[in-house]
Amino acid sequence: MKIRLVIVGGSDAGISAALRAREVAPGIEPLLILADEYPNFSICGIPFYLSGEVRDWQHLAHRSRSELEQAGLQLLPQAHATSVNPQNRRVSICRNTGEEQEIPYDRLVIGTGAVSNRPPLPGIELPGVFTLRWMREARAVQTWLESRKPRRALLVGGGYINMEMCDALSRAGLEVSLVEHHATVLKTVDQEFGRRIRNRLEEAGVSVHCGRRVAAFGRTGSASVTARLDDGTEIDSDLVIVATGARPATALAETAGAPTGRSGALRVSRAMETGVNGVYAAGDCVETYHSLLKKPVYLPLGSTSHKQGRVAGENAAGGEATYAGTVGTQVVRVFDLVAARTGLHDRDAIQYGLHPLTVETTTWDHKVYYPDAREVVIRLTGDAVSGRLLGAQILGVTATEAAKRIDTFATALQSEKSVRDLLDLDLSYTPPLGSPWDPIHQAAMEWVREWDSLEHRTARPPSDSETADPLAV
Amino acid sequence: MKIRLVIVGGSDAGISAALRAREVAPGIEPLLILADEYPNFSICGIPFYLSGEVRDWQHLAHRSRSELEQAGLQLLPQAHATSVNPQNRRVSICRNTGEEQEIPYDRLVIGTGAVSNRPPLPGIELPGVFTLRWMREARAVQTWLESRKPRRALLVGGGYINMEMCDALSRAGLEVSLVEHHATVLKTVDQEFGRRIRNRLEEAGVSVHCGRRVAAFGRTGSASVTARLDDGTEIDSDLVIVATGARPATALAETAGAPTGRSGALRVSRAMETGVNGVYAAGDCVETYHSLLKKPVYLPLGSTSHKQGRVAGENAAGGEATYAGTVGTQVVRVFDLVAARTGLHDRDAIQYGLHPLTVETTTWDHKVYYPDAREVVIRLTGDAVSGRLLGAQILGVTATEAAKRIDTFATALQSEKSVRDLLDLDLSYTPPLGSPWDPIHQAAMEWVREWDSLEHRTARPPSDSETADPLAV
Repeated sequence: MKIRLVIVGGSDAGISAALRAREVAPGIEPLLILADEYPNFSICGIPFYLSGEVRDWQHLAHRSRSELEQAGLQLLPQAHATSVNPQNRRVSICRNTGEEQEIPYDRLVIGTGAVSNRPPLPGIELPGVFTLRWMREARAVQTWLESRKPRRALLVGGGYINMEMCDALSRAGLEVSLVEHHATVLKTVDQEFGRRIRNRLEEAGVSVHCGRRVAAFGRTGSASVTARLDDGTEIDSDLVIVATGARPATALAETAGAPTGRSGALRVSRAMETGVNGVYAAGDCVETYHSLLKKPVYLPLGSTSHKQGRVAGENAAGGEATYAGTVGTQVVRVFDLVAARTGLHDRDAIQYGLHPLTVETTTWDHKVYYPDAREVVIRLTGDAVSGRLLGAQILGVTATEAAKRIDTFATALQSEKSVRDLLDLDLSYTPPLGSPWDPIHQAAMEWVREWDSLEHRTARPPSDSETADPLAV
Repeated sequence: MKIRLVIVGGSDAGISAALRAREVAPGIEPLLILADEYPNFSICGIPFYLSGEVRDWQHLAHRSRSELEQAGLQLLPQAHATSVNPQNRRVSICRNTGEEQEIPYDRLVIGTGAVSNRPPLPGIELPGVFTLRWMREARAVQTWLESRKPRRALLVGGGYINMEMCDALSRAGLEVSLVEHHATVLKTVDQEFGRRIRNRLEEAGVSVHCGRRVAAFGRTGSASVTARLDDGTEIDSDLVIVATGARPATALAETAGAPTGRSGALRVSRAMETGVNGVYAAGDCVETYHSLLKKPVYLPLGSTSHKQGRVAGENAAGGEATYAGTVGTQVVRVFDLVAARTGLHDRDAIQYGLHPLTVETTTWDHKVYYPDAREVVIRLTGDAVSGRLLGAQILGVTATEAAKRIDTFATALQSEKSVRDLLDLDLSYTPPLGSPWDPIHQAAMEWVREWDSLEHRTARPPSDSETADPLAV
């Protein structure tokens, strides 16, 4: 009997699940229930559409609707899945027309994603104030850009989306201000990097207000929206993007009785099972297994959603795949700067009972005698007890290949290397592109030097401490 | 008693050994016997000096002579080490003045490097015909360029040096011809890539003669040198660079009784010991431990020399370091193309009794909707019996970050991953710099698809075959 596979969600996790299910069991015809009209869109590309770099919003689709249909996927757009009955294996849906329907399934994959936080601020409902996660929000912002021709934008929140929006809206010709309540921007990297990125934003003309919160939005004079900050500062703007994080969309899965974890996201096994028979979940609605911490975390990322979706789809089709886990690799480009990270920072590591030592090294992306050598800064984190590699952060301009250098660190992390092991990596070298001791090696050398000097200063019992290493398998 | 450390050779291996010895035993004052006046020069940078991109030859020094002396290294330049007496632990040297001397040592590190092959061709001694490995050769070519203002160059040999010299001399305004006796250029990558690189050379105006050998050099008419090829073609030029490989400079070590391997290079342990008491060797004069083949190979590379020198220096100073080995990672930039490789090709793998399967995948360096996406071609090699990753080759323009993507493969190889494991790598993603399934993932997916289809076609006994895997530890 052919498995009836139903998938709720047409973004990265849902589409990956459907395609993988078709691959492992070509007879399956997955039915995808889509809340909107935008299946398989690259929502990570939204800032590059709003910047004007991507001319046509339809180009953001990983695959067109007809390509998806040719791949054997059945699409049910504009349909909201409202509840799951796991006893009789049915999903209730409500179509945009108001029509309600029950759809039977043998296996269900839930990929409902996440929704933007909307802080309960006075005036957040004003026209011109947007959140930005899904294509419908992106198109609303684009319509606003085209119809209102805003001159000034205010970005609330200094995370990935607004780092990219600083760049995007500056390119689009707007004057940009940013408000972030932390001491500096981009808290996914250490403050030392956050400060440098803030400097770069300011060099590019962005007016940055760190350590400040928006108290309220209102209207004064000619501005579409005036934001009042907690210190009384008023910022007039014609467009506001509020990007202060996202929360997992778990309501549907909860109707099936699927449990959530501490983060509020669905708690799933590494087979992407929800614990409810026949129901899998993947992507931004679930907790992600962190392969260093060996614990679930909430880390909604496109790269992760694709991998999890693939595992969910394979298993829903009768396979036995396991999600290997994340090590938290992330990258963002802000103007010409690339900030990349993988693994743990000090604060994550301490929280999990490790003993992080972070050493910062500034070096050149390639041999300095060859033209256009640029600085690359690496913050390398290892465990001061075991010497194990815990993480790395890299900051450099695009040409420094920082994004790919972080991938080498990520691969080493996933292979459970020590920092000292990094010295043995057989990395490529030619003077225009690297050094015989690559920045990765140089960072590791500096870390080991620092660590060796620590060892001489402290007489600690290594065997006791090592057994206390919570990363030990 | 302080160890008297003597090091023969002032290139990558020798200097690395000296610096590392100082680091682990700061009391040591290494004495370096240098055949020339160019300690610690980056000979990999020579093409970029001859192209005019590096203006001053002195910039090619990794460190200046005074920096080396400040680091505690004693330099004895213009001194040729002629023999080693391991019984009384003395090195005989002959200075440029003709003065002979014996230098006592407790530990000796030999880093005599390699010398360019000079094929025994009629006319190879003509003025205007050069080999190119050491600084003195580079400076001789530069003097020729400045004094003779050659218009046409002929490059003999289609390996790394002449790939870079095609670029370099074209930049310097010369008309360039290349003769390579193989069917295509750059035999360190598969012919499929060699052909594409050849096309790029021709697009850039280089006249490429593959499958041809130089029969003789002579003089005709106004040309400095006329090369006659084996098919009778005559190529006039004003400058000839013969770069047809190098052979290890082992004569000194052989006077000490150090054994050589099948390649003719010194056979050393992974502690970089020559087998002669107190005598270590590193760099282009030794065989390099290949950590996939678990055998010594001859692979003279700067990146390797630095690592081996460091191990030799540490051990000569009383340490217990082990050279982890190479996986054969190499990269070259030819005009705007980057060709990178790591691990084994089909022909290497077959030679060592493996069952390679190579699958080529063409994809985009970043999301194609973002401007300037460029093609990146990956040839992924895995073992058809065990599924283990054996190697990868990447070709793309500089902006595709091919050199750093090969580093991810190299790190995965050094961690003994399977091709399927690559799908789990947590690589960084942002649309201007990558894809949620990076080209590395996509290449692995294609390989696994191809492999899975092979498995269905052939009923082979996997358990038998797997025990025959010569890479099995």
